[in-house]
Amino acid sequence: MIEAIGNQYVVARPVYSSHTFGEEFKKANRHHKTLLDHLKGCCSCSSQKAKKIALSLFPIASWLPAYKIKEWLLSDIVSGISTGIVAVLQGLAFALLVNIPPFYGLYAAFFPVLTYFLLGTSRHISVGPFPVLSTMVGVVVTRVASGGSSAPELSGSMENASLDAQDQEKIMVAATVTVLSGIIQLLLGVLQLGFVVIYLSESLISGFTTAAAIHVLVSQLKFMLQLSVPAYSDPFSIFKVLESVFTQIEKTNIADLVTSLIILVVVFVVKEINQRYRNKLPMLIPIEFIMTVIATGVSYGCNFEERFGVAVIGNLTSGFQPPITPSVKVFQDTIGDSFGIAIVSFAVAFSVASVYSLKHDYPIDGNQELIAFGISNIFTGAFRGFAGSTALSRSGVQESTGGKTQVAGLLSAVIVLIVIVAIGFLLQPLQKSVLAALALGNLKGMLMQFAEIGRLWKKDKYDCLIWVMTFIFAIVLGLGLGLAASVAFQLLTIVFRTQFPKCSTLANVGRSNIYKNRKNYADVYEPEGVKIFRCPSPIYFANIRFFKQKLIDAVGFSPLRILRKRNKALKKIRKLQKQGLIQVTPKGFIYTSDGFKDSDEELDNNQIEELDQPINTTDLPFEIDWNADLPLNITVPKVSLHSLILDFSAVSFLDVSSMRGLKTILQEFIRIKVDVYIVGTDDDFIDKLVRCAFFDDEVTDSIFFLTIHDAVLHILMKKDCGTSKFNPSQEKEMKFDFTVNTNGGLRNRECQVPVETRF
Amino acid sequence: MIEAIGNQYVVARPVYSSHTFGEEFKKANRHHKTLLDHLKGCCSCSSQKAKKIALSLFPIASWLPAYKIKEWLLSDIVSGISTGIVAVLQGLAFALLVNIPPFYGLYAAFFPVLTYFLLGTSRHISVGPFPVLSTMVGVVVTRVASGGSSAPELSGSMENASLDAQDQEKIMVAATVTVLSGIIQLLLGVLQLGFVVIYLSESLISGFTTAAAIHVLVSQLKFMLQLSVPAYSDPFSIFKVLESVFTQIEKTNIADLVTSLIILVVVFVVKEINQRYRNKLPMLIPIEFIMTVIATGVSYGCNFEERFGVAVIGNLTSGFQPPITPSVKVFQDTIGDSFGIAIVSFAVAFSVASVYSLKHDYPIDGNQELIAFGISNIFTGAFRGFAGSTALSRSGVQESTGGKTQVAGLLSAVIVLIVIVAIGFLLQPLQKSVLAALALGNLKGMLMQFAEIGRLWKKDKYDCLIWVMTFIFAIVLGLGLGLAASVAFQLLTIVFRTQFPKCSTLANVGRSNIYKNRKNYADVYEPEGVKIFRCPSPIYFANIRFFKQKLIDAVGFSPLRILRKRNKALKKIRKLQKQGLIQVTPKGFIYTSDGFKDSDEELDNNQIEELDQPINTTDLPFEIDWNADLPLNITVPKVSLHSLILDFSAVSFLDVSSMRGLKTILQEFIRIKVDVYIVGTDDDFIDKLVRCAFFDDEVTDSIFFLTIHDAVLHILMKKDCGTSKFNPSQEKEMKFDFTVNTNGGLRNRECQVPVETRF
Repeated sequence: MIEAIGNQYVVARPVYSSHTFGEEFKKANRHHKTLLDHLKGCCSCSSQKAKKIALSLFPIASWLPAYKIKEWLLSDIVSGISTGIVAVLQGLAFALLVNIPPFYGLYAAFFPVLTYFLLGTSRHISVGPFPVLSTMVGVVVTRVASGGSSAPELSGSMENASLDAQDQEKIMVAATVTVLSGIIQLLLGVLQLGFVVIYLSESLISGFTTAAAIHVLVSQLKFMLQLSVPAYSDPFSIFKVLESVFTQIEKTNIADLVTSLIILVVVFVVKEINQRYRNKLPMLIPIEFIMTVIATGVSYGCNFEERFGVAVIGNLTSGFQPPITPSVKVFQDTIGDSFGIAIVSFAVAFSVASVYSLKHDYPIDGNQELIAFGISNIFTGAFRGFAGSTALSRSGVQESTGGKTQVAGLLSAVIVLIVIVAIGFLLQPLQKSVLAALALGNLKGMLMQFAEIGRLWKKDKYDCLIWVMTFIFAIVLGLGLGLAASVAFQLLTIVFRTQFPKCSTLANVGRSNIYKNRKNYADVYEPEGVKIFRCPSPIYFANIRFFKQKLIDAVGFSPLRILRKRNKALKKIRKLQKQGLIQVTPKGFIYTSDGFKDSDEELDNNQIEELDQPINTTDLPFEIDWNADLPLNITVPKVSLHSLILDFSAVSFLDVSSMRGLKTILQEFIRIKVDVYIVGTDDDFIDKLVRCAFFDDEVTDSIFFLTIHDAVLHILMKKDCGTSKFNPSQEKEMKFDFTVNTNGGLRNRECQVPVETRF
Repeated sequence: MIEAIGNQYVVARPVYSSHTFGEEFKKANRHHKTLLDHLKGCCSCSSQKAKKIALSLFPIASWLPAYKIKEWLLSDIVSGISTGIVAVLQGLAFALLVNIPPFYGLYAAFFPVLTYFLLGTSRHISVGPFPVLSTMVGVVVTRVASGGSSAPELSGSMENASLDAQDQEKIMVAATVTVLSGIIQLLLGVLQLGFVVIYLSESLISGFTTAAAIHVLVSQLKFMLQLSVPAYSDPFSIFKVLESVFTQIEKTNIADLVTSLIILVVVFVVKEINQRYRNKLPMLIPIEFIMTVIATGVSYGCNFEERFGVAVIGNLTSGFQPPITPSVKVFQDTIGDSFGIAIVSFAVAFSVASVYSLKHDYPIDGNQELIAFGISNIFTGAFRGFAGSTALSRSGVQESTGGKTQVAGLLSAVIVLIVIVAIGFLLQPLQKSVLAALALGNLKGMLMQFAEIGRLWKKDKYDCLIWVMTFIFAIVLGLGLGLAASVAFQLLTIVFRTQFPKCSTLANVGRSNIYKNRKNYADVYEPEGVKIFRCPSPIYFANIRFFKQKLIDAVGFSPLRILRKRNKALKKIRKLQKQGLIQVTPKGFIYTSDGFKDSDEELDNNQIEELDQPINTTDLPFEIDWNADLPLNITVPKVSLHSLILDFSAVSFLDVSSMRGLKTILQEFIRIKVDVYIVGTDDDFIDKLVRCAFFDDEVTDSIFFLTIHDAVLHILMKKDCGTSKFNPSQEKEMKFDFTVNTNGGLRNRECQVPVETRF
């Protein structure tokens, strides 16, 4: 029991090294699970487990039987209809991003809902086209599909038949990419790799979606201006498209430009009103729907198509088309992009789904979501749709209009179905530029994210760097490759962060057991000859040299240099002794001649290796105090440091490379008689070092202490005992200390220890 | 001054939160260097700095004037001659690895030494061909050079002229790759990027060189068996080569096989002797030299070439050839490989050089080494040599025979020069298989590194994984691509290590200020209602979810769930109050009817959002004790936790994503009245959180305490005061506590607080 004594921190206990602490407090006998145990746990099988897995594969089996028809059905119907209308418009608009006829966007809005209804775990997201994804698919479509036909001239003078053939190819490519990304998602889901989304940090997603918005913006320019822009392949494509647009800017169709600008302005204004008065309005103004109806009506009434030559949606082939066989050749060309699409699709949907799952307090399962989206995409691709995820705005509609379950999603699909099979022809006179403007109207939020750069710069430089690099990668390399590069870069930043730790020298603040960076405080106390060094990050191959350099900087000398100098000096002293120039007397030893000539001879190879060895003075009848003055021509740098404390409380791991490096450093210090203490480590840490044979005669496991203060007290005590000779283990260590008088002789300044008989 | 009182740890001081500590001990006013300051420091210019840079670019200018002719020249001559002989043999042997005529290996052994003499900072390494690098160049040569000519049939029936043309192409490719990798090294050096080598950990280098040895082994098979193996391009090439060798194994030239096996056995045995008796032998037996002389003699004497059809070195064109222009087309094809070659070349040389620099105590400069190797490789490539670095064995010869400076290197180049211009013809009858066997003889050490796998597995699973993956990557993908993949994988392991930290719950051990993992100790003490949670790694985007999950597992409940349940319960209580079913009396309040029907109605969207808000009871005339029994049909899970201490002493950084996540977690706990304390952070940590606007009314900066023990004492004190009502800040918090009697009524069990007037 610990008791609080006022506001006082009072502790009295023995000083603990890890060793003495371990002796006093017995460790519990813990059984650590081995890899085998984990595998057994995973692979064990029971009927209950099987049932659970089966149920988790078809989430509908658990929620549909519990469906409360009376309470939920009405809200689901209302929500389904609202969502359906949005889905139709978005489907048409996003199909333009894919560069295929708008009608196919309706397939993309219809098919995935059916499979997700059966397999999905989220009850509130609206599955279907998502602008960023559509752009990603569109980029692949333009790259791969344009390769075959006469690429640079896509202008209006083409025949319908060839245009149709080209469209067919594009649709095939879009479908193939969709199927492939579905397969990838399915595989990831089956392999339980749903956790990959955690590698997409907020900064990365923000930078990435901003870049995606720029891509969308640029890709829509040609529809708004009604220009024919050739297809460009991935890296740098955005610049090529811009160049192409601006070189033919004089060909702009004014009618399209005016229409889209008007729509853009109206949409912006109304959305702003929606946002500002969201609490006062009875319902949000469905501005997209209203504008579509008006634009269709005006275009039909005034016959825009013939009068101004604007591009309209045109022929909407009613009904469905037979499934398509994906092309294996396209598989090979698009594997990289498909991977990007699969990840982005899942990442977006999962993040939206988790927002709602948190809000309505039900679990979602990442791996099951991957499986659901995988199968949805395969299914959609097979029926000529394109890759879907969930559009934030559409999911918002489905949830805010009261949708309770995916029954609402199913009903929205019914609305899309009605448009597909029955009333699609009504949309024929709608201008493509109107769809483009509507798509752009949703980008404002994403583009506003540029403000994030400044905020991140203030908060965290690395996060800011991630944002900027992600944006640049995604703009320059395209979304698929850019995402891969960004994730790689982002992971690198984790390495960078740990690679150059802000090592610091600590000192006692307030004369109790608190040790802080000595540079931060005005009034600090550093015990004499003790250095406390803190490394605030794991130590591994990439920063062990940095750690060593910082440590050497902190103590002010390289221990290896000192060791070499001392060993060299020792050689000379031995020589002096052999030549009889140093004589041992009961009072110490006397340097009898100053005629010794010091040849600074070159040492050969073996001798140099010897210099790195521990200083061996067992054959000498005295100990040498290296910090005192040695005979005239022997100089050794003086070292006032006697103890070094390494605060490893933030060193979460060591790898094998760093362990070897650390041991070398410790040895170097120990060999020049600097005691090294390591404090603040976990118990596991020492266990691991033992396992790696880290300890030997020089570096022992007695260097570990619980806290800095324990080590400091231990050092003070040891020094106390050392000078007052209470410590029996120090008996052998007699100190001799040279001072040089003017004629080069030596006398013993300090000798309180009884000289042993062997003298 | 701190004094040691025996072996006792005695501390008495106030309990410090970071706040109170900061007030008591003033911080020093530190000027942190901004990015601008750093830039200024870098860009400032002075004549001294200019001189230093100029000197560092030509290290020879500093060491050659200090050359001690008398003492050093003799050793340098001896060393130079020994090294030169080895260099000739290795040059010839390693040229076979490049798949070009052996003679060009002599150029590779000659040219780089000249430039390194002028530009290098290491005094002991012998610059020139290195088997792993030669293999890497060889792989590129076979891939690129074979593309043009009739690829699969390289057999003996070809004409000399076409063979010569093909050789010329190969030499051109090798030279081009060499020049390109030189340019890359030069660029890296000029950009001061020499630090990249720190990304090559010991485990990676070990795995990589083992894989390289396997590549060398496989590539030499065709020379040993004298088979014609077609060229295969990079990934999976090793398997194709093996397949090709084994399908035509019956065509083996027995004479070559026998010769090379004999040589291999002899070399192995003698090397073993050299190793075992290295201290007793007067000098190491130069077995390669001896075997070459014998083999050449025998082959010439018995006319092996005509009798057994063995392949010999043959025509050695004496003298030099004019420089070659690298092909820009080849540049484009080989940029990836060149990058790998540049990095490996530098990494190997730098690691060897740093061994000697440490041994002989002189500085080497990584960036200058990059520049030196870059220019050396450009120079060598221009004169038809191939990429060099340093061979471990050759540098060993140069240093162990007494070489003091690069003058020895220069002399070894003279030996190579003599062979090139004068006595090269002597080597004409030497079998290629002999060279292959000699090259293989050096691989034993590298192949022995397989034993490393077991050792690493015991030491560190991640390091073992790095070894194995590096080996697999390098074998399967080839050395260049494999190196890139390995480095990427290795950096990923750093992320993995921090991504799944071993979070633990701490408890007091020994009733003083020591807190350890409670599972590790048999006798621990946990203050009631207090949970101490330790996260031993940085927290960032990839592990914030993991951290949250572990925290929820540790406390045993999800705070958000509890918050929702309480808010729901509160709604009901409000309703009861509004309906007059709960009446407030001076003694508390009474639930007057049990007729209240609880409709488990669905809450609409806004209501659900409300549930996540802090519990607001200001409109209620009483506080609710959620852990007591509430009226009959209101149930809320009980929470015995009142304080949560997060030990962040090993959390070296937070990124922006994790900061938001952490704040959410803290809020959730604070909203259900669990006090959260964060302990053990650096001062910088709090500063950063302040900068990121982490704190608000709920999460304040008063949650930071210096140590776990400070926080625990603070909690105990607070609870003491709380029950004995000494704390004025707790006056408002009156406790009401429901107990339900059998007829559904409520009575107030505990009410020691004076009821305020507003009742």
